[in-house]
Amino acid sequence: MLYISDETIDRWIKEDVPYIDLTTLTLGIGGIKGKISFTAREFTILSGVEEVLRIFAKLEITPIRALPSGSVVNKGDIFIEAEGLASNLHIAWKVSMNILEYCSGIATRTKKMVETARSVNPHITVVATRKSFPGTKELVIKSIIAGGAFPHRLGLSESVLIFKQHVAFLGDINDLAQEMKQIKANACEKKIIVEVETIEDALLLIESGVDGLQFDKIPADDLKLLVDQIRRINPNITLLGAGGINGGNIEEYARTGINAIVTTAMYFGKPSDIGVTMEKY
Amino acid sequence: MLYISDETIDRWIKEDVPYIDLTTLTLGIGGIKGKISFTAREFTILSGVEEVLRIFAKLEITPIRALPSGSVVNKGDIFIEAEGLASNLHIAWKVSMNILEYCSGIATRTKKMVETARSVNPHITVVATRKSFPGTKELVIKSIIAGGAFPHRLGLSESVLIFKQHVAFLGDINDLAQEMKQIKANACEKKIIVEVETIEDALLLIESGVDGLQFDKIPADDLKLLVDQIRRINPNITLLGAGGINGGNIEEYARTGINAIVTTAMYFGKPSDIGVTMEKY
Amino acid sequence: MLYISDETIDRWIKEDVPYIDLTTLTLGIGGIKGKISFTAREFTILSGVEEVLRIFAKLEITPIRALPSGSVVNKGDIFIEAEGLASNLHIAWKVSMNILEYCSGIATRTKKMVETARSVNPHITVVATRKSFPGTKELVIKSIIAGGAFPHRLGLSESVLIFKQHVAFLGDINDLAQEMKQIKANACEKKIIVEVETIEDALLLIESGVDGLQFDKIPADDLKLLVDQIRRINPNITLLGAGGINGGNIEEYARTGINAIVTTAMYFGKPSDIGVTMEKY
Amino acid sequence: MLYISDETIDRWIKEDVPYIDLTTLTLGIGGIKGKISFTAREFTILSGVEEVLRIFAKLEITPIRALPSGSVVNKGDIFIEAEGLASNLHIAWKVSMNILEYCSGIATRTKKMVETARSVNPHITVVATRKSFPGTKELVIKSIIAGGAFPHRLGLSESVLIFKQHVAFLGDINDLAQEMKQIKANACEKKIIVEVETIEDALLLIESGVDGLQFDKIPADDLKLLVDQIRRINPNITLLGAGGINGGNIEEYARTGINAIVTTAMYFGKPSDIGVTMEKY
Amino acid sequence: MLYISDETIDRWIKEDVPYIDLTTLTLGIGGIKGKISFTAREFTILSGVEEVLRIFAKLEITPIRALPSGSVVNKGDIFIEAEGLASNLHIAWKVSMNILEYCSGIATRTKKMVETARSVNPHITVVATRKSFPGTKELVIKSIIAGGAFPHRLGLSESVLIFKQHVAFLGDINDLAQEMKQIKANACEKKIIVEVETIEDALLLIESGVDGLQFDKIPADDLKLLVDQIRRINPNITLLGAGGINGGNIEEYARTGINAIVTTAMYFGKPSDIGVTMEKY
Amino acid sequence: MLYISDETIDRWIKEDVPYIDLTTLTLGIGGIKGKISFTAREFTILSGVEEVLRIFAKLEITPIRALPSGSVVNKGDIFIEAEGLASNLHIAWKVSMNILEYCSGIATRTKKMVETARSVNPHITVVATRKSFPGTKELVIKSIIAGGAFPHRLGLSESVLIFKQHVAFLGDINDLAQEMKQIKANACEKKIIVEVETIEDALLLIESGVDGLQFDKIPADDLKLLVDQIRRINPNITLLGAGGINGGNIEEYARTGINAIVTTAMYFGKPSDIGVTMEKY
Repeated sequence: MLYISDETIDRWIKEDVPYIDLTTLTLGIGGIKGKISFTAREFTILSGVEEVLRIFAKLEITPIRALPSGSVVNKGDIFIEAEGLASNLHIAWKVSMNILEYCSGIATRTKKMVETARSVNPHITVVATRKSFPGTKELVIKSIIAGGAFPHRLGLSESVLIFKQHVAFLGDINDLAQEMKQIKANACEKKIIVEVETIEDALLLIESGVDGLQFDKIPADDLKLLVDQIRRINPNITLLGAGGINGGNIEEYARTGINAIVTTAMYFGKPSDIGVTMEKY
Repeated sequence: MLYISDETIDRWIKEDVPYIDLTTLTLGIGGIKGKISFTAREFTILSGVEEVLRIFAKLEITPIRALPSGSVVNKGDIFIEAEGLASNLHIAWKVSMNILEYCSGIATRTKKMVETARSVNPHITVVATRKSFPGTKELVIKSIIAGGAFPHRLGLSESVLIFKQHVAFLGDINDLAQEMKQIKANACEKKIIVEVETIEDALLLIESGVDGLQFDKIPADDLKLLVDQIRRINPNITLLGAGGINGGNIEEYARTGINAIVTTAMYFGKPSDIGVTMEKY
Repeated sequence: MLYISDETIDRWIKEDVPYIDLTTLTLGIGGIKGKISFTAREFTILSGVEEVLRIFAKLEITPIRALPSGSVVNKGDIFIEAEGLASNLHIAWKVSMNILEYCSGIATRTKKMVETARSVNPHITVVATRKSFPGTKELVIKSIIAGGAFPHRLGLSESVLIFKQHVAFLGDINDLAQEMKQIKANACEKKIIVEVETIEDALLLIESGVDGLQFDKIPADDLKLLVDQIRRINPNITLLGAGGINGGNIEEYARTGINAIVTTAMYFGKPSDIGVTMEKY
Repeated sequence: MLYISDETIDRWIKEDVPYIDLTTLTLGIGGIKGKISFTAREFTILSGVEEVLRIFAKLEITPIRALPSGSVVNKGDIFIEAEGLASNLHIAWKVSMNILEYCSGIATRTKKMVETARSVNPHITVVATRKSFPGTKELVIKSIIAGGAFPHRLGLSESVLIFKQHVAFLGDINDLAQEMKQIKANACEKKIIVEVETIEDALLLIESGVDGLQFDKIPADDLKLLVDQIRRINPNITLLGAGGINGGNIEEYARTGINAIVTTAMYFGKPSDIGVTMEKY
Repeated sequence: MLYISDETIDRWIKEDVPYIDLTTLTLGIGGIKGKISFTAREFTILSGVEEVLRIFAKLEITPIRALPSGSVVNKGDIFIEAEGLASNLHIAWKVSMNILEYCSGIATRTKKMVETARSVNPHITVVATRKSFPGTKELVIKSIIAGGAFPHRLGLSESVLIFKQHVAFLGDINDLAQEMKQIKANACEKKIIVEVETIEDALLLIESGVDGLQFDKIPADDLKLLVDQIRRINPNITLLGAGGINGGNIEEYARTGINAIVTTAMYFGKPSDIGVTMEKY
Repeated sequence: MLYISDETIDRWIKEDVPYIDLTTLTLGIGGIKGKISFTAREFTILSGVEEVLRIFAKLEITPIRALPSGSVVNKGDIFIEAEGLASNLHIAWKVSMNILEYCSGIATRTKKMVETARSVNPHITVVATRKSFPGTKELVIKSIIAGGAFPHRLGLSESVLIFKQHVAFLGDINDLAQEMKQIKANACEKKIIVEVETIEDALLLIESGVDGLQFDKIPADDLKLLVDQIRRINPNITLLGAGGINGGNIEEYARTGINAIVTTAMYFGKPSDIGVTMEKY
C-alpha cells in the first residue's frame, strides 16, 4: 500500500546511530546472540510493524513472529519476537520502538475516532489532514489507514482545494464563483472543493457549480442546519467538516450529515506504551 | 548550532508538493506577487523560523522581517512577513506552518517545564530524550534548545548509558559492577551511567565507581530519599531522574536534588496555533 | 509551480560530468572567461529555462538575459545568454542543451495539440498521461504545462482511476457497479473514474453513480455517438478520450464533446533544435 | 554490465507513487494475491527487464519467468510473469511498463540501425551519443548496448573530444594544431579527437598528429570522398561521422568507410508497445 | 557495531563505475562465470571485509568463504573467495580491494600501536581522533576498532572538549574556570575536558572541577612529571596525551600514566598490500 | 573543473556534526561573532580551498580573503580568513581543516613528483591511479590536478585497460592478440592499452596493433631497455610505467622514455600541517 524507500529506512537507523553504538562497544557484548521482544502495555492498534521488519532485515535480525499493522493487541500481548546479535539488536531497539509507539499511537486514536463517528453515521469517512510533522508523512499515512481513516489530501499536487489564501489572489468570492466554470474545465477529472465559513459563500458557490464545500470551525449544531439546507439544493455535493474536530466532539459532527470529517486530532497525544525486553541466548 | 542539509530542506518541501501545486495551477494565479504573514494565536516560544527562511530562500521568497527561534511572542504578534510569487508562497505555506507549529509547540512546552523546575532548583538541567518521532530529530533538538533544555543523549554513538537490556548480555548487575573498572578504562573520556530501579543496585554500582545513575520511574518522594542517601556517600556522582516526568510533576522531581530531569513530555501535545494570511500586492 | 530539489539539479550535472571535464583540462582553457548563447533553430515553445538557470547558478555562470519557459521563439532568436569561466561553461553546455531541447520539444508539440483541439472545441482540456520516461517526470510535467496542457494524473497517490487490472481483483464490472456507493463514500473528495471500452459497461457504471468515464481506443466517430448518448442521461459526468490520440487525430476527438483528451503523444518525437555558441571574452 | 543503485530504483517507484496507491486502497483489493504478465505487441528487442525485476524484489513480487534484456520477442510473446499482492502489483505496474517500453523502444531502433549499417560494412560500429534526456542515462546506455551499439562518450570525464566551442577559447584551428603535441602528451592514454567540418581543417589536424576526426553534418557522398582522401594519408586514423544520421540514411554513411557512426536517432520515436494483464489467484 | 547505509555502499560502487565497465563490455566477456580471490601479501589485521560482502551482495557475487574484520592473516593467506559473472566481478574488484587495503592498513597500524602501548601500560586506551579524510569516517572508525583502539570523539555532537579556539570566545582561561560550575551543570551527563599546554592552566582548571585534561604536544618526559603532580591532587581525573604521538613514541607516552593516548597516526601510511586474482569457471 | 554536489558538501559537514556542536552549546558562546584564519606551517601546494568556501557559504561564514587551490604557500602564510558566528565557525573548523590538510598533502606530494620527473624528461606526464580511499575520489582528483598531474583512469567506464584479470576470461595472451582487431573496432574512439609484465607479451601485442602498454613493476633499468626496443618497432605507441613508483625512484623511471608514470604514491603520507586560529570580534 505504501512503499518506503531503502534510503528512508536507512535514514531512520542512522538518525539514532550516526556512527557506532558506543555502549555496546564499551561493554564488549556485541557478538553475543539474543532475542528481542516487543510487548503491548495497553490496548493498541498496531502500526509500523512492517517498517520495523525492514530495519531488522538490514541488521540481520531474524523475525520469529510478528503481527501485521492494523492488528489489535492488549496489555501483555507480545507482538514481535526476533533474534540476532546483541550489537544489531541494540542498534534496532530504540528506533523500532519509536516507530511502533508513535505509529500505533496514531492508529489507535484514529480507530477510536472512526468507530465513534461510524456508530452514529455508518457511511461517514474520517479523513486525516496533511498537518503532520515534516519528515513523518509516510508513517503517518500508514498509521491513519491502519486505524481505518483515509487521507484527506496527501499534498498539494493531487487535489483542488481552494482556501481564502487562494481567493486573495483572485479577488473575492464572487470572482471565484465567476471563474468556477473555467476552473472545472481545467481540472475536469477532479472535484473542485472550496473551504467556506458562511452560508452566503456556500450558496454562491453551489450555484456556480462547485463540487464540494469544506466548512471550517462551524459548531456542530450550526453545521447540521447548513447541511440540511444545502442537501435540499444539491443532494450530491460533497460536504466536509473541519477545524477543531477531535475524539471529544466527533460524534456530534458525525451526526450533521456531512460526507467526511477532516481532522488532525489523531496526530497529537502520547505514543502507545510498548515494552521491549532482550534476553541472551 | 544545528546545520540542516539542503537535502533535508528539499525533502520537507517535496513531501508536501511532490510535483506541482495543482490548485494554484488550476486557478491560474501563480504569477501574481503577494505577501505571506505568520501570526501567533497564543503565547509561544518560537522555533523553526530559520528553517522556514531556508525554505523561503529556495522558493525565491524574500523575508521582510522574522524573529529568531527562541523569541517569545504573544497572541496577535506577527513574527514572519515575506513576499514572493503566489505560486511559491503556496508551495511554502503548509510545510512552513507545520514546522513552526510543531517546533514551537515543543519549545513552548519545554520552556514551561524548564522554568518550573528552575523555580525550585536553579541549577537543575532539563534534558530531553531521544524518543522523538523518527525523521524529526534535528527539528526536535533545535526546539528543546530553543526552550532552554539540553539534549539527554542524541543517539547511541555518543554516550555510555547502560540499561537492563545491556546487562542481560553481561549476566547480572554484579557482573556489571565487576566489569566497571575495565568499562571506565575503555571509555575514560565518558561518564559511565547506569539506569537503576533499586537502592541496592545503586549502592553496588557506586561502590564499583560508576559516574552516574539514572533512576527510572521512582516516585519523587522516594527519589528524594535516595538522592540524599547517595549524596552522603558520593557528593559528585551524577544523578538523573527519568520515567513519566512531565509538566505536572516536574516541580516535585526538581526538588529531589537530582542533577537533571530526563523527560520526553515536551514532545507530546498540540502544536502551537499559528495563523497564516496572504495578500495580493 | 514546480520546485525541483537541489539534489536533482546536481544529479543532472553529475550524470554528464561524474568527475572532471577532461577535454577542458587537457586543453588548459578552463580559466578563461567567456559567453555562452542558446539560439532557436526553429519555431519553439521554450521549456526548461529555469532549470538551466539553476545549473548556471551552481556553476557561477551569470545570466545576461533569459526568456522564461512558455515563451515563443523563432528561428534565429537568442533566448539565453550568460557568462562565466570556460571550465564551467563546458560543464553546463550539454546538460543544459539536453534539458532545453527535450523539454521544449514536448512543450512545442503540446502547444500544437492544444491549439488544434481548442480550435474546434474551446472548452476542451488536453491532459498528458504519466507514461513518461522514468526519471523525467518533473521536467515532463513542467513542459506540458508550458505548452498549455494539464496533467492527467501525476501518479497513483492522487486520483481514483479504475482499470480492468483493478476489476480483475474485484470480480467483474457488475461487482464494481455494486461497490460504487461504498467506493464513493471512501473517497468522497475525489471523482471516481473508470476506464471502459463498451457502451454497456458505461451505462451500467453511470447508473451506479460513477463520476467519470475514460474511453480507451474508441474511434472518434463512435466516441461522438457514445458521448451524445451519455450526455442525454447525465450531462455532468466527466468524459475522457484516451488511447492513440495524437496531433493527427486530435481535432476529430476534440469534436466528440468529451471533456478532456488524455494523450501521451507529446512525449515522443525529436527534441527541439537549439544551437549553442561560445565565445571568449 | 551496468549497476544501478538502490536509490535509483527507489526513485523510479516513488516518482509514480509518492505516498500510496489511492485506487487500490479505495477499492480495498490490496491484500488479494495475483499474477502480472507482460506481453509484446510487436517485434521487440527487450531492454529494462533486469530493472523491472529489481522493482519486483523491492515489492515482494516473485518472478515466475523473465527473458533477459537483449532477447528478441514477437507479437504475442509473454516475456515476464510474476506474482504478488495486488497492492504491490499495482505499484509496480506502470513504472515497470514505462521502463520496458522506453528501453525496448531504444534497443529495437538501435538493433535495426546496427544491422543496416553492418549489412554493408561488417566492421563498422554504431555509437550512441550522450544526448539523452537528463535523468535517463543509465537506462539509455543499457538499451543501446542491448541493441548492439556502443556508447560514444558517456560524459565529459572520459574522453578528449574537441569542438569549436573549445577552439573558441584557444584561438583558432591553427592554434589547436600547434598545441596538439602538448595535448597528446597531457592525455597520452586517450585518443585526441576533433570535430571538423572542412577538409582543410581535417588535413591541418592530421598533420599535427590528431588521433581521430569527427565529421559533423557532411553529406554521405562528400564524406566518402573525404574518407578516401584521408585514408591515403593516414590509414589508421579514427574517422567518425555524426550529425543527422538515422535509420533512413545509415546505410549510405556505413558505406563511406568511417570507423563509427555517431548517432542519437535511436533515442527518439515511440516506445515499444507492451501489454500488461493482471489476474486474481 | 557500525551500520553502513545502502546508499553509501552504492556510492562506493558508482564512484568507480559511474556508468558501465567499458573494458569488459569491449572484450565481450561479461557473461562468463568465474571466481575472485583476495590474498594477503603481508601480515595484516583485516578490516572492511563485511563491506566488501555488502558490495558482493549487490552484484550477485556469492561468497564461498570470508574471514571477518579483525582477523589476523599472513603473507599468502587467502581470506575471501567468491564467485559470480565476470561483469560483476570486474565491477567489484577495485572498489573492494581499495576498501580492504585502506581499512586493513589502518587496522594493522592501530593494532601495533595498541600492543606497544599496552605492553608497558596494560590499562591504557588508545583513542583515534576525528582527523580522518572527509567521506571516510565510517570505514576509519570500523578499522581502528578492528585494531583494538576506541574512538576519541566521533564528531562535535557528542562530547564537551574545550580548545583555545573556544576559550577565545569566552575571554581567557580564568573565565573558563569561573564558568566551570555552570558548564558542568549544563552538561552533567558528560565529562568536561579541556585541552591545555601548561601546568598553570591545568592546575587552575583542576581546582575549578574539570573532569579531564588533554595535553597537547608535551614531550613524554615532561608529561610524566605533570601526570604525577596532578594525580597527587586528583587521582580520578581523566588525563589524555595528544599531538604527535605515533608508533615510534607511543611506548614512552604510555609510560607517563595518562589514561588514554589520543592519536591520528594510524590514518597515515601505505594501505595493506593485497593481491586479487580471478579465474574462469 | 570539478563540480561537487551540494549533497556531498553537506555530507562532509554532517559527518562531523550529525546533530549539534555540544561544546559550543554548553559554553553558550554560539552567538558571538569572530574570525577564523588558516595558516600554513610548512611549504604547501594548496588544495581544497574552494570546497572550504562552499562549506563556509552554507554556514553563513563570509570569506575575507582566500588563495585558490594550486597556490604555493610557505610556513606562516595565512591563506584563508573569514568571519561569522562562533557557532558556525566551530562547525566549519575541523571539516575544513581536514579537507585542506588531506588535499594539500596530496597536491604537495604530487607537485614534487611532477617536478622531479619533468626535471629529467620535460614531456613526461604523471598520472594518478584510481586507488584512492573509497569516498574521496573527487577531492583526490582535484588535488592531483592542483599538483600538476593528470588522472590515469577515473573509473571503469572511460577507458579500455586490459589486465590479466580480463585475460583470464578470454583464455591467454594469444587469444587477446587474436581478438585485438575486433576490440579496436568495438572501441575505435579509445586507445586499447594492456598491462604486461614481459617483453614477449609486449611484442605479441604490438604486432596485434595494441595502442599502448602498461608495464607493471619492471625495474627502471630493465624498463629503459624495453622502451628502447619497442620504440624502434613502433615510435608512436603509448608506454606507461606502473607499480611501486614513488618520490624516491620517479626520476629513474622518468629517464626510461615512457610517456607517463602511473602512480599512487601521492595518496599516502601525512596531511599538510595547517594551523587554525579563531578570535572574537
